[in-house]
Amino acid sequence: MKIATEPPKTPGLSVSEAQACILGKIIPLDAEEVGLGEALGRALAEEVCANRDLPPYDVSAMDGYATRAADIGEAPKTLQIIEDIKAGDTPRFSLQPGQCARIMTGAPLPPGADTIVRLEDTRPLEHDKVEFPIPVKPGTDIRQRGESMREGEVVLQPGEEITPGTIGVLATVKRAKVKVVRKPRVAILSNGDELEALDEPFDPRKIPDSNSYALMAQTQALGIEPILLGIARDNPEELASFLRQGLEYDVLLISGGTSVGVHDHVRPTLAALGVTIHFWRVEMRPGHPVAFGTSDHALVFCLPGNPVSSMVCFEQLVLPALRRLMGHRRLFRRAIPVRLAKAVKTKQGRAEFVRATLSRDASGAYVATPAASQSSGNILSMTHADVLLVAPGRHNALNMDETAQAQLLESAIWQSTPDTELDGGFLL
Amino acid sequence: MKIATEPPKTPGLSVSEAQACILGKIIPLDAEEVGLGEALGRALAEEVCANRDLPPYDVSAMDGYATRAADIGEAPKTLQIIEDIKAGDTPRFSLQPGQCARIMTGAPLPPGADTIVRLEDTRPLEHDKVEFPIPVKPGTDIRQRGESMREGEVVLQPGEEITPGTIGVLATVKRAKVKVVRKPRVAILSNGDELEALDEPFDPRKIPDSNSYALMAQTQALGIEPILLGIARDNPEELASFLRQGLEYDVLLISGGTSVGVHDHVRPTLAALGVTIHFWRVEMRPGHPVAFGTSDHALVFCLPGNPVSSMVCFEQLVLPALRRLMGHRRLFRRAIPVRLAKAVKTKQGRAEFVRATLSRDASGAYVATPAASQSSGNILSMTHADVLLVAPGRHNALNMDETAQAQLLESAIWQSTPDTELDGGFLL
Repeated sequence: MKIATEPPKTPGLSVSEAQACILGKIIPLDAEEVGLGEALGRALAEEVCANRDLPPYDVSAMDGYATRAADIGEAPKTLQIIEDIKAGDTPRFSLQPGQCARIMTGAPLPPGADTIVRLEDTRPLEHDKVEFPIPVKPGTDIRQRGESMREGEVVLQPGEEITPGTIGVLATVKRAKVKVVRKPRVAILSNGDELEALDEPFDPRKIPDSNSYALMAQTQALGIEPILLGIARDNPEELASFLRQGLEYDVLLISGGTSVGVHDHVRPTLAALGVTIHFWRVEMRPGHPVAFGTSDHALVFCLPGNPVSSMVCFEQLVLPALRRLMGHRRLFRRAIPVRLAKAVKTKQGRAEFVRATLSRDASGAYVATPAASQSSGNILSMTHADVLLVAPGRHNALNMDETAQAQLLESAIWQSTPDTELDGGFLL
Repeated sequence: MKIATEPPKTPGLSVSEAQACILGKIIPLDAEEVGLGEALGRALAEEVCANRDLPPYDVSAMDGYATRAADIGEAPKTLQIIEDIKAGDTPRFSLQPGQCARIMTGAPLPPGADTIVRLEDTRPLEHDKVEFPIPVKPGTDIRQRGESMREGEVVLQPGEEITPGTIGVLATVKRAKVKVVRKPRVAILSNGDELEALDEPFDPRKIPDSNSYALMAQTQALGIEPILLGIARDNPEELASFLRQGLEYDVLLISGGTSVGVHDHVRPTLAALGVTIHFWRVEMRPGHPVAFGTSDHALVFCLPGNPVSSMVCFEQLVLPALRRLMGHRRLFRRAIPVRLAKAVKTKQGRAEFVRATLSRDASGAYVATPAASQSSGNILSMTHADVLLVAPGRHNALNMDETAQAQLLESAIWQSTPDTELDGGFLL
């Protein structure tokens, strides 16, 4: 019987140090060209310029009448309608004194016109006459040529995250294809003799492999479709074969097999395959035993086997790495300040990530209620959490009514009620 | 020449009224079965129960030694190691007095064991002996059978939004397929003679159609792949043909053609095709002329032609409708309270949605800076906005330092810096 090596007592890195270590080794992937339909959520990899002035000519900003302001200096005044101009038309006539043209939003101004009078500020008379009962300010409700963008102007910069608005700009400048940073290819491997695969028959003594699927979904949530390699059993040859396969991807996520006991073949096998391990402990909870390594072209994360630990380590360490590979500048989940509805005990010296639900108080301020179970084995607590509260590890508790930062998880991007406080007070 | 009908002076609905009108006409779509790989972000359409106890037996929560607490009542004590148990093993022996077993996290407790002693709290001796230098509390570091879930227990409810954690739970209970609410089929149509399609040659007098693509991306951001029908010109037959095609979908989004002038064929043509229009004005800015109608099976939204107006109307009115169709309970974008870095003029009586960027002050509180241009024609202002500030229309300004609600747009789900305040103070 072999004797376990006692683990070194040196503390692991702090979460910030671990993030800095990881991000310091990553540069964004190379660019590829994609169609507009595939560009959402990607990082732009080129500068984009306007290909024409917009609007391309002075246009009406409203439905109404194009006029010469001098004509209706002394309201009320009646003018003759000489034309009907809608968006896309080319005006046929120049406005002469005493004339106006009916005009639609976005339609080009006829020569001679300098002012738009809104439809609701006019009074239709018989046939081709209209009355302007009130004076107008010259230049009103005209959108001038080039007001939105000027031909040749840089409208988008490399590195911008492509949002729906960006897609609108790309269509505006007629870019059917665009250069974006390519997505990382991600492989996921579970590890452990106790695991039962999703497609294996039920065995009451086994533990279902959920980590592969939770990690898959966390990766999908970033817009990346990962590959599931399956489950490596505690057999060195099988493990080596799986790891060799996984190292052909840009990123390999391994769950389980990170503990410090005698049975851990993962780290030595990775080392034999040319992976340098940069750290293997981070002072965080859940998630303490977590390792990060690099080969000449792949990133490797060894995540804990506990379902919640695996997910929380992904959130704090893998997510920013994947977002940097994708060329993004905003690498971390949005966090908002929240007031604690009840205290949580934490462990001084370790950052803790506390699952909690969100609500609002009467003033509209956010309140977080920590989940009753913070067990790292209990995936249900993760499923029903809106946020991860960050307990920085300076103290041994987050106190009731204290303010903490709360990282918004997927489902918390949405809320149940609108906040158009039209009727006074929040609609909560 | 026809004379324009003067528009009615009745005010439109408030945003809340419009949302209530729309949501009141929607029930979630029917269910479909999908694989776990396609389930993220969907609403669950069935109850899900645990199919076994988890853990399936008492397991060790740590790497260490399984012991009989009575044996090490008076520490220090040396015990004999009789076995090595890892996750997935079946223990071969019962612990007798004076014996212990080396055990890994997740491994089953051997009969007779009642306490786990962590590896770091032990001292290895020669061969098959280990010393326990400190006393232990009976029952320590054991995860009990059924602690995470009990066989038959309901673990997920219909209507839950499927997050990565939910995918983990589904894998845990061995559900390779799951019933979810199906996605709406969405068609998008642009409307207007002035529009130049993305694949049409450059014409200096035309306006590029950007709305189809921005709406496409807004729809994709909800996990729905829409169909772009193209551009309907101001020709009644062509328009009718496009609308007939669009009404075969669950949701038809039409941009442009909602103004009240003589050239608007959209509303009468929709009426002729059996669509009842429920409202055609909402007191919001941007976005004032916006219509909502229903046929016997389709929802129709007529959105303004201005790029920003179209996007803001989608956000406030279409997005909650699509999310309800998908079976979700959280229908609206998450909004957070922010302090205004500078004042914005608004118009009393209309809700305004003000594009702004987010930053934080020294205390970590959020500050919003309204974009310089709030022109509804300027899509760049939408592209670079983090949030839409909600100005409820009760007053004619949002004042500097006032608190407003800020709806988080796509790119604001992420932030540039971590908030693991390990070193004291915010890392901003």
